[in-house]
Amino acid sequence: MARVAGVVEQALDALLPPVEGAEGQLADAMRYATLGGGKRMRAFLVMESAGLFSVNETCAARVAASVEMLHAYSLVHDDLPAMDDDDLRRGKPSTHRAFDEATAILAGDALQCRAFEVLAETDTHSDPLARCELVAALGAAAGARGMAGGQMIDMLAEGQTLDGPAITRLQALKTGRLIQYSAEAGAILGRAPVHQRHLLAAYGRDLGVAFQIADDLLDVEGSAAEIGKTAGKDAAAGKATMVAVLGVEAARERADLLARQAAAHLDSFGERGASLRALASFVVSRRS
Amino acid sequence: MARVAGVVEQALDALLPPVEGAEGQLADAMRYATLGGGKRMRAFLVMESAGLFSVNETCAARVAASVEMLHAYSLVHDDLPAMDDDDLRRGKPSTHRAFDEATAILAGDALQCRAFEVLAETDTHSDPLARCELVAALGAAAGARGMAGGQMIDMLAEGQTLDGPAITRLQALKTGRLIQYSAEAGAILGRAPVHQRHLLAAYGRDLGVAFQIADDLLDVEGSAAEIGKTAGKDAAAGKATMVAVLGVEAARERADLLARQAAAHLDSFGERGASLRALASFVVSRRS
Repeated sequence: MARVAGVVEQALDALLPPVEGAEGQLADAMRYATLGGGKRMRAFLVMESAGLFSVNETCAARVAASVEMLHAYSLVHDDLPAMDDDDLRRGKPSTHRAFDEATAILAGDALQCRAFEVLAETDTHSDPLARCELVAALGAAAGARGMAGGQMIDMLAEGQTLDGPAITRLQALKTGRLIQYSAEAGAILGRAPVHQRHLLAAYGRDLGVAFQIADDLLDVEGSAAEIGKTAGKDAAAGKATMVAVLGVEAARERADLLARQAAAHLDSFGERGASLRALASFVVSRRS
Repeated sequence: MARVAGVVEQALDALLPPVEGAEGQLADAMRYATLGGGKRMRAFLVMESAGLFSVNETCAARVAASVEMLHAYSLVHDDLPAMDDDDLRRGKPSTHRAFDEATAILAGDALQCRAFEVLAETDTHSDPLARCELVAALGAAAGARGMAGGQMIDMLAEGQTLDGPAITRLQALKTGRLIQYSAEAGAILGRAPVHQRHLLAAYGRDLGVAFQIADDLLDVEGSAAEIGKTAGKDAAAGKATMVAVLGVEAARERADLLARQAAAHLDSFGERGASLRALASFVVSRRS
């Protein structure tokens, strides 16, 4: 995972705009929000799923960088005062604290834009149909019936009591769809048969839910130093989480079950799927 | 122009997400921000430039709807309190006033996302290479070195004194690049030879600057009822405009000159280019 993070960091640095001109502060904020932090789990999913189909690593790294830009944009906007109002992200001031709100809004906007642009550029894949499929799949994952829709539900749910199914759907949209896309992206790049793409999608869906529950557990159990953002924030905001509904013990069991289920979808890939299966275990056992 | 507006309105209605599910408020806000308003100039440019190459109207309408979604997102975010802080847009409350700030941020985000997704979908063009070129061209026009970059400069310039060249660059990025893209989009859809694409790009560039100066003149001279947003706002905010630098008379002359220059780029299209040439005159003579 550290090796992939290095490869993707380089790709991001090359693909993000240079800090120059009167608008340089925008590129500066985009770089601040994207470079030098995060576990790069989505990038890892792209690189490893692409590896299943022996995709050229330079192409896969562009797609991995693209999804990290998309993810970074969502964090920048989620942290805004009008949204989750968070001052800390990855252990440093969130983008609107390091710059200002207007710059953070624009940096998020420009990151989303660049994420799509990179996918469409010729260097990403020799077949333009594959590039179009990546753009359309990212659009479906990130939009009103994906990540943005999930964040909308999350905002509306503050102070309300959601039941288990409603929380599961919220999280499937807010976090799950982009994680699923990341796992599928390798199959799109590899022009894989549809049943293999579906296996990776199923893996990504289960992994996404497991990841979200693990994240909520960390929020309850972790300290700010460990998780790099304000701890206990979800509970304080009355946020709907599976931990709140199930309790810590049952939530941990649910996450473990989902992680095993995710890994099982990849059995047919044999040894080549080992690192993706290992990721599923890692996601639910991590402490930060 | 009214006919095109009707066609594009229908396409937008079909392409925007339905208002349903727990996230329905997001689709509602996206529709509020996009439907039933505006002159649809960017859509008109797409439809008319596509008409030069006899492009299927259904395909062109999708691209026209896409650019209107992108434009609507930029207006929603520009109106936010942290940006231009405008309560009125197209004669009704701006999106964050009609809903709330979080919803407006998310609606803008999801509109940008959908704009790219629509371009990549198979119904937009039979040739995936054309779809990729549209995505990449929109990305370049809307991103950090295009529209978003221009808005960054605009935010940083408040209370400062920009000279003529700096203002021209600001406006070329903030408004010009998306107008240029709209004019070029027809050539991409029509698989036109590169010199014709360049003519349309040159037309769009000059038209964009002329449009922006005309818009700034309206801000100085118009009333809120005529222009559908708060009048005199730019001057009050100390915004850098060519009107402030050149004065009203010289700014009007500059706009007229640019409009004639824009039209002249299309001479070689003969009678087929008549409506685009007429648009250039309209843009600098409009009163709202």
